[in-house]
Amino acid sequence: MCIDCGCSTQAQPDQHQHEPRTVRIEEDLLAKNNRLAVGNRQLFAAKQLLVLNLVSSPGSGKTSILERTLTDLQGELNFSVLEGDQQTANDADRIAATGVPVKQINTGAGCHLDAHMVGHGIESFNLVETDILMIENVGNLVCPASFDLGEDHKVAVLSITEGEDKPLKYPLMFQAADLMLINKIDLLPHLDFDLEQCKAFARQVNPQIQIIEMSCHSGAGMQQWYDWLVQEANRKRN
Amino acid sequence: MCIDCGCSTQAQPDQHQHEPRTVRIEEDLLAKNNRLAVGNRQLFAAKQLLVLNLVSSPGSGKTSILERTLTDLQGELNFSVLEGDQQTANDADRIAATGVPVKQINTGAGCHLDAHMVGHGIESFNLVETDILMIENVGNLVCPASFDLGEDHKVAVLSITEGEDKPLKYPLMFQAADLMLINKIDLLPHLDFDLEQCKAFARQVNPQIQIIEMSCHSGAGMQQWYDWLVQEANRKRN
Repeated sequence: MCIDCGCSTQAQPDQHQHEPRTVRIEEDLLAKNNRLAVGNRQLFAAKQLLVLNLVSSPGSGKTSILERTLTDLQGELNFSVLEGDQQTANDADRIAATGVPVKQINTGAGCHLDAHMVGHGIESFNLVETDILMIENVGNLVCPASFDLGEDHKVAVLSITEGEDKPLKYPLMFQAADLMLINKIDLLPHLDFDLEQCKAFARQVNPQIQIIEMSCHSGAGMQQWYDWLVQEANRKRN
Repeated sequence: MCIDCGCSTQAQPDQHQHEPRTVRIEEDLLAKNNRLAVGNRQLFAAKQLLVLNLVSSPGSGKTSILERTLTDLQGELNFSVLEGDQQTANDADRIAATGVPVKQINTGAGCHLDAHMVGHGIESFNLVETDILMIENVGNLVCPASFDLGEDHKVAVLSITEGEDKPLKYPLMFQAADLMLINKIDLLPHLDFDLEQCKAFARQVNPQIQIIEMSCHSGAGMQQWYDWLVQEANRKRN
């Protein structure tokens, strides 16, 4: 008998960790978030704005990908960027150096951006002149999967130093994503990483997921990512 | 005016993301967790058991460090291992192959282990014959920082592929940790990573943090980690 929730633990002790009360609270928070995400999505549609929610583990290279993308596509597409981190304005400073409008959101103890933060974060942007809003979420393969920000697509970045099995171990994120960027492929010669296995694992949890292999260090695969961005921005405009 | 919480957003729109109601819920959950963690800690003390809570980003090498540690210290120290992941028993299977008692906890949508899961997770272990209980948390640099499991120390693993600035961007975790393992230093020649800067950042958020540089691939620094384990296990026994 568990002293905490009164359950019988003989059968499968670790199967009852979510008590009814905890689940209810989670649903309340998500329902509220989803309501605000609908509002964001309506605003983004009215502005014909493509919105991408970049999600990943800490250190997978989201900010570096953004830096290179914003620089390489200067003059071709207009971007605005929302940066999410627990602390520091490091990422916003890096983005600001490219000349693109950026706003940093510090979540403090929070583990994800939510639709409310995004709704306010974009208030200073000129959305009419923006083609693509990039939202770099807090580095976290778990919680951001559950929070709709009103984006068109979640883009999951996986660096090859993290191992092939992450799509299986964090399936909700890879199910929620429409595109997976496999980053840091310039390190392939130095690692024991099976690229085909990783892609198979991703498709196992999400058969529809699109995959681009890239290195924002060497530049490999970046053009494929840019083509995808242009295509999706055009689709949103029409 | 924010339609959601009624706040005025003119001043700092992103500073009001935590509404009173949300904060109260979080405090409720943490208070309950802390109460259960006290119970775990009393049990661990009675058994003179050293308990370590391994925390990190996904893919930093926690499981590989454990595999090598359990194998190398076989006959010297007795371990039991709790494995936390959203999905799969991959990690438990890898640990089981070393012959050490292991239990996998799948958190489903959950982003961290809590004291309740740990309290039940250890029910099948022979704690009297265990010197060190290793708890490998869900790969997440945010949420596990807030949840006391009753452990003696949080051990934060940071792989050098993640970048030097992670202690600044995820300060709660590095403040909560007593030891930081900087892993994958065999990749230093292939990366633009400043080891001294990383250590300085960690000490900036936590001046007391101990730091060991290692590579469980090459074996560099592993002995220093083993010496630390033996010392801490002895301290717990006396």
